[in-house]
Amino acid sequence: MTEALRPGATIGILGGGQLGRMLALAAARLGLKTHIYDPAPGGPAEQVADRTTVAAYDDAAALDAFAASVDVVTYEFENIPTSALDLLEAHRPIRPTRKALAVSQDRMTEKTFLQDLGLTVAPFAAVDSAADLEAALGTIGAPSILKTRRFGYDGKGQARIMEAGEAAAALDAMAGAPAILEGFVDFTHEVSVIGARALDGAVACFDPGENLHEGGILRTTTVPARLSTAQRTDAVLLAGRILNALDYVGVMGVELFVTPGGLVVNEIAPRVHNSGHWTQNGCVVDQFEQHIRAVAGWPLGDGSRHSDVVMENLIGAEADRWPEIATDPTAALHLYGKAEARPGRKMGHVNRVVTG
Amino acid sequence: MTEALRPGATIGILGGGQLGRMLALAAARLGLKTHIYDPAPGGPAEQVADRTTVAAYDDAAALDAFAASVDVVTYEFENIPTSALDLLEAHRPIRPTRKALAVSQDRMTEKTFLQDLGLTVAPFAAVDSAADLEAALGTIGAPSILKTRRFGYDGKGQARIMEAGEAAAALDAMAGAPAILEGFVDFTHEVSVIGARALDGAVACFDPGENLHEGGILRTTTVPARLSTAQRTDAVLLAGRILNALDYVGVMGVELFVTPGGLVVNEIAPRVHNSGHWTQNGCVVDQFEQHIRAVAGWPLGDGSRHSDVVMENLIGAEADRWPEIATDPTAALHLYGKAEARPGRKMGHVNRVVTG
Repeated sequence: MTEALRPGATIGILGGGQLGRMLALAAARLGLKTHIYDPAPGGPAEQVADRTTVAAYDDAAALDAFAASVDVVTYEFENIPTSALDLLEAHRPIRPTRKALAVSQDRMTEKTFLQDLGLTVAPFAAVDSAADLEAALGTIGAPSILKTRRFGYDGKGQARIMEAGEAAAALDAMAGAPAILEGFVDFTHEVSVIGARALDGAVACFDPGENLHEGGILRTTTVPARLSTAQRTDAVLLAGRILNALDYVGVMGVELFVTPGGLVVNEIAPRVHNSGHWTQNGCVVDQFEQHIRAVAGWPLGDGSRHSDVVMENLIGAEADRWPEIATDPTAALHLYGKAEARPGRKMGHVNRVVTG
Repeated sequence: MTEALRPGATIGILGGGQLGRMLALAAARLGLKTHIYDPAPGGPAEQVADRTTVAAYDDAAALDAFAASVDVVTYEFENIPTSALDLLEAHRPIRPTRKALAVSQDRMTEKTFLQDLGLTVAPFAAVDSAADLEAALGTIGAPSILKTRRFGYDGKGQARIMEAGEAAAALDAMAGAPAILEGFVDFTHEVSVIGARALDGAVACFDPGENLHEGGILRTTTVPARLSTAQRTDAVLLAGRILNALDYVGVMGVELFVTPGGLVVNEIAPRVHNSGHWTQNGCVVDQFEQHIRAVAGWPLGDGSRHSDVVMENLIGAEADRWPEIATDPTAALHLYGKAEARPGRKMGHVNRVVTG
């Protein structure tokens, strides 16, 4: 514990959305302060953080002042410009480490890293041109899916190729951005493991949750997930292998496809993850506190599941259902303080708890 | 739900200590904003609230602006000057109501109110002079305890009278303040009920907790408390009777002595209560969220206990034990963000959870 931040220390968080907000709330429980950095004012985290800097990621003076005011830097999203990270790292440690960010910022690098670790991923190939795409389709075949290598989230920057004739249109949809072709995986369902690794290398994973997506956006996560004991062990072991290979410090989300042939890694997210929100009402220590503990150099908490939970995202106008949800005795409601309910926007979530 | 505050509305909280802090955190979970009013800067709640006004309780302009900026006013302590409440109430509803404050601000009014409700309290008499005290000691006898009628907390403003000869010294200790003499109650242990009442009159109580005090300060609360089924029912029913009699809206703490002859009401606190902190890790909806729901006009949540909990206060330098507590897998740590650990100061608490 010699490197642990003391209560009263400040954690800098890049990004002021709902993940930053819930990280700030978790830090506050532990007596730690938070300082948010976000280019846009009035975000969800700003309302609950000690301090917020509203500035662009290319504002060197603001980044310097921010770094000087905090004890450690963490982030709630992975697409942070490298130049900003360089400036911050000159002052304070960044946790999770740069390596994790570099790997997860680029789908090609990520897939290669996972494959090199001996894990199973969908067949993939880099696509920078029509010729690349034709060659990749020759190997991987259709149906398959073309994705931008960077900056994709919630199904954005993706185009399905159901047959070879759709190749040109899919490539156009990438708008010239470097892309990756991924083969379809024939899976029965998707699960994710929320893993954590402490500064001293200790690893702890929450129970895998089972995810249901709609239109590329997570709808529900259910714990426990439908997994055999062997699959559950596999899931946790492979998450641990990824965390260790990256010298990771913090919480990571690992999305997995469950197939008859075993688990296939879909993608990793070097941060707290929407599919881990159930831990707020299923465990004594949730994913947000676990992340704060890790980046603060504290020991990890006990993330054992005390209750079964179904987490449901409230997207867009669904958040207007709050009066009905508030009357449900099994429901723990979490709203993000967003003023405007735009379509597709994550406004909150509800954890429905099944107690024993 | 027609009178319910919508997410995004602002709850004004008088007092910026740890109770205000935990209320603000609970409000944030529900997408509600908080505005703290406190004469001192840098308090625990300020770090997590959307907004803080630092001003005295006799600053009419600041009170007006505060009231205009919020949708409802609540408080984390009961000794708010009447003049401030008058100003605030001209703009916005105050919940819990003025009546609850008036009753609990004065021990004499409180005891009389409880007795008039048909509840058992310790024998008591008003003491404004040496003659009053002599007469009271004649009826109530010694040992007994002389207390100031107002502004006492954590054992302050109290003097024990073990025999009649100590009367003069006890009266001196009151420093001329109006006082009340209370007879000793021969109790086996103390419990408290955290009750809640919604705007529509619905009442819900958390499981009674058993309290251990040391030097007038709460040390631990254990749930479940040692109570027979009949005692448990009595405790909850009498809390409900108090809440209804006051047209109460919000959370209240009711401290009870357990005696062979039945339950004796010690005192009531018209706010969230230290002996209810266990609910943060024992229930899906804790006392802080329950209070926020009530004052916001929302339906009460389900406060069923899913786990046994022992809550321990961390007082003064005890908070330095955080590194050890952080390694305890049963411990949920809550620190209040106070910079200086003065003796007797509540710095945080730990909920040790026993899962099934």
